[in-house]
Amino acid sequence: MTAAVSAVKAALRNQAIETPSWAYGNSGTRFKVFAQPGVPRTPREKLDDAARVHAHTGVAPSVALHIPWDRVDDYAALARHAEERGLRIGAINANVFQDDEYRLGSVCHPDAAVRRKALDHLLECVDIMDATGSGDLKLWFADGTNYPGQDDVRARQDRLAEALAAVYERLGEGQRMLLEYKLFEPAFYTTDVPDWGTAYAHCLKLGEKAQVVVDTGHHAPGTNIEFIVAVLLREGKLGGFDFNSRFYADDDLMVGAADPFQLFRIMYEVVRGGGHESRTAFMLDQCHNIEPKIPAIIRSVMNVQEATAKALLVDREALSAAQAEGDVLAANAVLMDAYNTDVRPLLAEVREEMGLDPDPIAAYHRSGWAERITEDRKDGRQAGWGA
Amino acid sequence: MTAAVSAVKAALRNQAIETPSWAYGNSGTRFKVFAQPGVPRTPREKLDDAARVHAHTGVAPSVALHIPWDRVDDYAALARHAEERGLRIGAINANVFQDDEYRLGSVCHPDAAVRRKALDHLLECVDIMDATGSGDLKLWFADGTNYPGQDDVRARQDRLAEALAAVYERLGEGQRMLLEYKLFEPAFYTTDVPDWGTAYAHCLKLGEKAQVVVDTGHHAPGTNIEFIVAVLLREGKLGGFDFNSRFYADDDLMVGAADPFQLFRIMYEVVRGGGHESRTAFMLDQCHNIEPKIPAIIRSVMNVQEATAKALLVDREALSAAQAEGDVLAANAVLMDAYNTDVRPLLAEVREEMGLDPDPIAAYHRSGWAERITEDRKDGRQAGWGA
Amino acid sequence: MTAAVSAVKAALRNQAIETPSWAYGNSGTRFKVFAQPGVPRTPREKLDDAARVHAHTGVAPSVALHIPWDRVDDYAALARHAEERGLRIGAINANVFQDDEYRLGSVCHPDAAVRRKALDHLLECVDIMDATGSGDLKLWFADGTNYPGQDDVRARQDRLAEALAAVYERLGEGQRMLLEYKLFEPAFYTTDVPDWGTAYAHCLKLGEKAQVVVDTGHHAPGTNIEFIVAVLLREGKLGGFDFNSRFYADDDLMVGAADPFQLFRIMYEVVRGGGHESRTAFMLDQCHNIEPKIPAIIRSVMNVQEATAKALLVDREALSAAQAEGDVLAANAVLMDAYNTDVRPLLAEVREEMGLDPDPIAAYHRSGWAERITEDRKDGRQAGWGA
Amino acid sequence: MTAAVSAVKAALRNQAIETPSWAYGNSGTRFKVFAQPGVPRTPREKLDDAARVHAHTGVAPSVALHIPWDRVDDYAALARHAEERGLRIGAINANVFQDDEYRLGSVCHPDAAVRRKALDHLLECVDIMDATGSGDLKLWFADGTNYPGQDDVRARQDRLAEALAAVYERLGEGQRMLLEYKLFEPAFYTTDVPDWGTAYAHCLKLGEKAQVVVDTGHHAPGTNIEFIVAVLLREGKLGGFDFNSRFYADDDLMVGAADPFQLFRIMYEVVRGGGHESRTAFMLDQCHNIEPKIPAIIRSVMNVQEATAKALLVDREALSAAQAEGDVLAANAVLMDAYNTDVRPLLAEVREEMGLDPDPIAAYHRSGWAERITEDRKDGRQAGWGA
Repeated sequence: MTAAVSAVKAALRNQAIETPSWAYGNSGTRFKVFAQPGVPRTPREKLDDAARVHAHTGVAPSVALHIPWDRVDDYAALARHAEERGLRIGAINANVFQDDEYRLGSVCHPDAAVRRKALDHLLECVDIMDATGSGDLKLWFADGTNYPGQDDVRARQDRLAEALAAVYERLGEGQRMLLEYKLFEPAFYTTDVPDWGTAYAHCLKLGEKAQVVVDTGHHAPGTNIEFIVAVLLREGKLGGFDFNSRFYADDDLMVGAADPFQLFRIMYEVVRGGGHESRTAFMLDQCHNIEPKIPAIIRSVMNVQEATAKALLVDREALSAAQAEGDVLAANAVLMDAYNTDVRPLLAEVREEMGLDPDPIAAYHRSGWAERITEDRKDGRQAGWGA
Repeated sequence: MTAAVSAVKAALRNQAIETPSWAYGNSGTRFKVFAQPGVPRTPREKLDDAARVHAHTGVAPSVALHIPWDRVDDYAALARHAEERGLRIGAINANVFQDDEYRLGSVCHPDAAVRRKALDHLLECVDIMDATGSGDLKLWFADGTNYPGQDDVRARQDRLAEALAAVYERLGEGQRMLLEYKLFEPAFYTTDVPDWGTAYAHCLKLGEKAQVVVDTGHHAPGTNIEFIVAVLLREGKLGGFDFNSRFYADDDLMVGAADPFQLFRIMYEVVRGGGHESRTAFMLDQCHNIEPKIPAIIRSVMNVQEATAKALLVDREALSAAQAEGDVLAANAVLMDAYNTDVRPLLAEVREEMGLDPDPIAAYHRSGWAERITEDRKDGRQAGWGA
Repeated sequence: MTAAVSAVKAALRNQAIETPSWAYGNSGTRFKVFAQPGVPRTPREKLDDAARVHAHTGVAPSVALHIPWDRVDDYAALARHAEERGLRIGAINANVFQDDEYRLGSVCHPDAAVRRKALDHLLECVDIMDATGSGDLKLWFADGTNYPGQDDVRARQDRLAEALAAVYERLGEGQRMLLEYKLFEPAFYTTDVPDWGTAYAHCLKLGEKAQVVVDTGHHAPGTNIEFIVAVLLREGKLGGFDFNSRFYADDDLMVGAADPFQLFRIMYEVVRGGGHESRTAFMLDQCHNIEPKIPAIIRSVMNVQEATAKALLVDREALSAAQAEGDVLAANAVLMDAYNTDVRPLLAEVREEMGLDPDPIAAYHRSGWAERITEDRKDGRQAGWGA
Repeated sequence: MTAAVSAVKAALRNQAIETPSWAYGNSGTRFKVFAQPGVPRTPREKLDDAARVHAHTGVAPSVALHIPWDRVDDYAALARHAEERGLRIGAINANVFQDDEYRLGSVCHPDAAVRRKALDHLLECVDIMDATGSGDLKLWFADGTNYPGQDDVRARQDRLAEALAAVYERLGEGQRMLLEYKLFEPAFYTTDVPDWGTAYAHCLKLGEKAQVVVDTGHHAPGTNIEFIVAVLLREGKLGGFDFNSRFYADDDLMVGAADPFQLFRIMYEVVRGGGHESRTAFMLDQCHNIEPKIPAIIRSVMNVQEATAKALLVDREALSAAQAEGDVLAANAVLMDAYNTDVRPLLAEVREEMGLDPDPIAAYHRSGWAERITEDRKDGRQAGWGA
């Protein structure tokens, strides 16, 4: 084994991909949510499922929570439940879009009382961070408008800035605020944080603890996501990813399923910019509407691993040389050589070196977990988005 | 009044815009459905609301039903309820996407039993047409796949063709099958009827009673919808419209709200191709997620009227002359002259001549209907999509 | 005349729309440039044509130059030529994309010698600003890559920053640097300034004299341009516009031709943000590939005027009231009321009050200018992009 | 070697990918054409270069011509020149967009004289087919309009149908008409054949010899191209491909460069539908604006080969089984298993079995051809699009 391959393997062993609690619950479109057997009924059961993903992949050690979907009485106990299963609590995701008051927005709402309510929820999320040891507050706002004239676009920015400042102020040592942007949906005319530029401008004013989250499904058609990744890393403002994939809009398919080459290019810019060795959070944010959830999440973790492996295998020296000479085809060929490599054997080796089954999907199916939860969780109300 | 203006007014008086029963019920996104006060609880109450729209606009005489959302024991009685309120039943919209069996499709499903179930529902819809006097069966299939490889794209076309043929066979005298296409959602990789070409190819093979429906929100970015309208009219295959508007995807905003110039161009091609004097159905298909439903539907009807009025006002002779000379700017100016005209006074006159209030929105607000239904419909379960 | 209408008229009289010298020359697509009769052969003849546009509209007092397309020996003489025709020199547009050395970029090129050459050209443009009295340096970079791996995305940002800083340093009192962004073309994988966020981030670091230019054709499908305008005005970073319109990509059609409602919404945010009273530059940047150039430019100026007039007519008080109450339909209706107003009579009045013909297009056609230049400019080489 | 691998190899050996004469000449964007050393000056020199591509790949035996770019006095002699180099003449591509008369269109032009001129050119192209032995007439029309109202959309369809019928009538035994569609460019409002539906509808009326060409760069964002391929194959109407790739619009990059997974999915549907064993033409249509042309074309041919190899390796039996069971993840995994396979060793073997160097790019570079043409073709006028 060359030193290079050894370093690649080390990087792959140390990778950490966060899975989201809500991906274990039911999800769907506005047309239909298809319930699945064995879906968790409680936050603890979501953690139990997440633990299976980590057990089979070895690189999914943290779980993001979504409040109020994961609201419990005792967050410290929830964190201990995670810890006992080899997990830790990842980002706390705030939800200020599902109460009736939020029909016209939350922190950007024209009514100060609604804004106050939303802000209180955000501050509560920081409390939960304190209680669970989470380091990241993830903020996605559904705020926006559906019709031209509906509200004052600029005033909404002022309200947004005010709320963000209040939350930022509350952050403790080592805690970050990760601000997500999204082109559209559920707002269909304006969205108050529609692009990375808006998120970046707010984070810049807030300070070092505020960083931007790139959700790979939240862009206009044709957007070069890896460019944004490269620029944000250069600015020190890439807080993390919400991984998923899409053919059309925010389809929330398994990451790497729609455009594996794009995922590779993104991971290459991460590696190029040192993002894999920084605090950048690599989170999944997906919906498994028609496919079984746990194996879909394992597959997604594996897709990120494969893209990362290929990115790590790029011959950086040869690439730089070709780039410096302006040899377009040679430079492209260096990159494609890594992409065209079948990294599955390498990852199988990495897993075996970690004491894992080289085929996590097969191992999961053999484990009997699916059958067990189908049986155990027959009664009660399955977790879901509750839209 | 010139003969031309008189003809325009006559055309506007005779316009018929169909409203959909489901637009009176609650709707939303996958993130949240915001319930509204006064929303109907039954199909009859939806018809009552539709009657208000017709009373104030004079051009909304029919209502589309959606089965099973509008399932009743006695469809003939439902039709009489409509008739007593000056309405008739419009298109019957089939729903083969909300039963659990439809997770992987309906008429295109790999399992013949599911296909049979779906077909039975479509045939039931024709029974309902018979019972209600409806002339149109509107077919929109959510069928598709989310992941490459998930199913055989071509085999699904075969299954689709088989189901359509069976339904077509069942159609009675004067009954049409209107086939709708949609780029994506809820399927995110392939959709089995994704574009007008696919719908057209199937309708062509089926025969004269099968025609294409253009939903204005169901296209890829950049698609020239009026071109499709012109081509389908030329082919005798434009069955009707599902009007709404969008900035991004299938946003389902009020028609004319996002791009009034596009609506005008569409209506110009309709007028140019004689579609306003044919059996082409002009239906709304919208979601009023954050705005009150009845006034939003009235506004939508008015928006179609205004676009139609402008289209009718185009100086066709001057336009043809400029086009024949290849005078790009002059030809464009003729069209824009009509578009830039404020047709609201003309439409106010038309309404007064029809014995209506010239301002339908104001008249509705004065009518007390909103207050009355808010009070009367307090209890019980509001109608909605039931996703 | 009410005080309000009087203020609207005053604003319209004081409006200043800059026309670009290159719009008077031949242009086309990669498939064909269709030459037109009477096209200018020299920068002075372009100014002569621009003077006609100003003579008929009264609101087009400045002309943007493009170097080297408008290179002359004596720039001060060129400025005097403009002045004698009632014009002044507007923005100086740098061109670092047409020399053979720029095949792989200019200021972002991997080769320092090419970067130096490009920088020298930019500095020369500031010299030309000094000589002509121009206040604005407009920078659009064709820089980018066509293939993944072709060059180092992040290193290119470093090189870009270095060049911009050197140019910024050279700016004199009252001179601005306007940085333009563009999604794609002529680069087809990465573009080094692809979005407003990237332009904004660079301008922020440079200082107050650096501002962002919004070219209305340079966005991904679905981008909400008026949102960007509102945000940049809020940040004090909106330097100006390159107006044009598009259905697909950077089509460079006459502004307002493709989506007049969008242009209105943009101008509304300008008015809302005080941009019409600031130093924001309102420039056209269009190609008249198939239509005669001078009347097309006059029409474009008129389109901006009409959108501005409608924006000024918005009942801001009523709008704010409806917005504050969260009355979605009422707020939208206030905006639409202004949009649906036919402002052509108002603008005709404004022109008459300015001593102009109320119909600039007709007046131009009557003037005999088209016939005169067709005759006078028969010989010699017509100006064009020289691609 | 299993029977399966043997069959895959046989299919790969028999593959035929057509290269376009114009890809060997200079090309660019409207902003700049960067000339390259060694570019052919004559149609014969283009064939000489094409012969090198075939010599190194073994699967590029035919060359498409573009008239008038490849106009010669003696077409039979040109065909012999090809034959002597182991090539044959592929599709004849008509050009009715570069004469001044075509400013407003060709076969759809409002002026009958222009339409006649265009038709004559199309008929001349069939003469050239007769003289060269070409079997395919490829028709791409730049026809369309830039502004709403500019011309009558529907009348243009009538004119188009008339011209196509006249050309179809002229086709001889074994000759096909391949009709291409394109979303936009150079027309920016309407395009007369903008989508596969329009092309299909015309071809259907014309008859069996008329088929649709899919140019992979000619679609709206989000269009599922492999779906169109599957549907056209099912209808017996897939005439061929114009391969290239794009991130944004019709970028004309090397096929497989922007989205190799999409190319694989397309080739999978081809294989699934038997297109690789039919008369479907696999043509490249690309621009090599910044990269050296011959190696770029070799790379493109290799990219198609690799995608085809992966498509052929799909375990169809396992796929069908998973699809029939509705096992979404398993079905997707079967497809991805083939895609993730590194097929370069297999293709190297195939080449060696064909007596070729396993690395065509390296072999080309070693051949000295680039140096030779750079020297030999120093003088004279390089071939290009002549826009």
